[in-house]
Amino acid sequence: MTEGGFRLAALERRPLKDAMAQAAKVAQARVGFALSTQEGDLPAAMLYAVTGGKALRAFLALESARLHQINPVAVAGAAAAIECIHAYSLVHDDLPCMDDDETRRGQPTVHRKWDEATAVLAGDALQALAFELLVQTDCSPRAKMNLVVSLAHAAGVRGMVGGQAADIAAETAGAPLDLDRIMALQAGKTGALITWSALVGPRMAEAEREPMTIYGEALGQAFQIADDILDETGDAAVVGKAVGKDAAAGKATFVSLLGLDGAKRRAADLVDAACDALSPYGEDAETLKEAARFVIARTH
Amino acid sequence: MTEGGFRLAALERRPLKDAMAQAAKVAQARVGFALSTQEGDLPAAMLYAVTGGKALRAFLALESARLHQINPVAVAGAAAAIECIHAYSLVHDDLPCMDDDETRRGQPTVHRKWDEATAVLAGDALQALAFELLVQTDCSPRAKMNLVVSLAHAAGVRGMVGGQAADIAAETAGAPLDLDRIMALQAGKTGALITWSALVGPRMAEAEREPMTIYGEALGQAFQIADDILDETGDAAVVGKAVGKDAAAGKATFVSLLGLDGAKRRAADLVDAACDALSPYGEDAETLKEAARFVIARTH
Repeated sequence: MTEGGFRLAALERRPLKDAMAQAAKVAQARVGFALSTQEGDLPAAMLYAVTGGKALRAFLALESARLHQINPVAVAGAAAAIECIHAYSLVHDDLPCMDDDETRRGQPTVHRKWDEATAVLAGDALQALAFELLVQTDCSPRAKMNLVVSLAHAAGVRGMVGGQAADIAAETAGAPLDLDRIMALQAGKTGALITWSALVGPRMAEAEREPMTIYGEALGQAFQIADDILDETGDAAVVGKAVGKDAAAGKATFVSLLGLDGAKRRAADLVDAACDALSPYGEDAETLKEAARFVIARTH
Repeated sequence: MTEGGFRLAALERRPLKDAMAQAAKVAQARVGFALSTQEGDLPAAMLYAVTGGKALRAFLALESARLHQINPVAVAGAAAAIECIHAYSLVHDDLPCMDDDETRRGQPTVHRKWDEATAVLAGDALQALAFELLVQTDCSPRAKMNLVVSLAHAAGVRGMVGGQAADIAAETAGAPLDLDRIMALQAGKTGALITWSALVGPRMAEAEREPMTIYGEALGQAFQIADDILDETGDAAVVGKAVGKDAAAGKATFVSLLGLDGAKRRAADLVDAACDALSPYGEDAETLKEAARFVIARTH
């Protein structure tokens, strides 16, 4: 088959399950290749941390790129980068001084399998690797710079880490947060990376960002509500991590504020909004719509 | 004075003390500005972590830029970025699960002043901020991408974090390391960031890198040897952090391997090599030569 034919095949829409499996494979292979010359516990812990997840963020990056006629090879650096950032944040969140979790994705957390120092360093090195891999994304220098600065912003004090710090501050503040503050906090903690992932395609193609911004933000909120619902109703063996911790800690969540049914309704509305935003992409965006429905499916 | 006149003044050579004070001011002001809209413990801890140091790395970035006719405003992003990376590494190194240090730069470490979770998150957010600020450096898109990928490399598993992990592994390995392994470890742990800083000018100007590479690598080694000597002979109150810990831990250092006099001789030879490498820059490089001599001055 010609190169053109190959490209076309790679850009065909796939069912959600296949597309997510491909995204996980692309991201993990890219990280694995980058670490292939390294020996010792540090690279082993890094690779362990990026393995076994659903790779939702890499999938969003690949799909949003596909909607802009960008093939998986060109976007692999960005897909791997966002999984590195997500993985590092989980490794650090699981530390004894943070959430103190023993399992993640059904496996021992990094500090339980190795030790705390290795977990701190593996997280640190994964963040650096993210930016190294991101620069290897195949797009114009201007688009690349935009990817770097927006990822740094989404991952930092005004994004993910800021949201995480606000979450910890809320736990010790005494009074539970109200809905607006929970939404602002979650927009940073989980929303920023999900929205960034959804915007990889428009950023690489230097195209209109509005549809994917609306989709990403709505999906991020739906995702967090689904997480709160699973924390309330899920089975630790199925979820792959400890559940019921938020309720036990008397922490405000979407479930405690909206009630279980209210939270489910809110998540369903957000998924509808996310899907509506994709209308400019037509039939091509069907897999992203499936993904939005999948995010809340386990809560029904 | 005209803009041209101002630029010229900013590019004039200054004595070491003034140039280092300016570098600290430029880097801290840039970080302070980036955090000025943020409230809470997290940005406060981040700013605290980048304050009060000598800002050697920012100084190297500014000086190497000046040698390539690049003014402090254009290089400020890179100078701030390298200080963010250095500061984050200190915050994480000081954690109880790593070196467990209570003071740094004569002040309480971040996890003592706040808590461990804040220290982990402040370090994480400083690394993200580094890449955000780095992209604001004023140079060509190609040069900027080169700065990003080289900083990510120098800070990560094949640079600083890799060296730190190797250092910890050596402590638990039983037999002390030999000189070659110590040098390889230190080239990552402290050498990579120092060399990167020295190369900011050539990278921004897309100029010949060899002289500054030799200077940076020699300076990095001299710096580490001086650190080992201070750990052996220094006064904690003057050094600003705990001393004598390496010897107490039976750890191999340049002093334990070369003897005190041998280590001093090696450092002096490295400073000579660093200064010789600067000959292509003539009189203009005098401040960088002063800096190399300064690095080992406190050990004589």
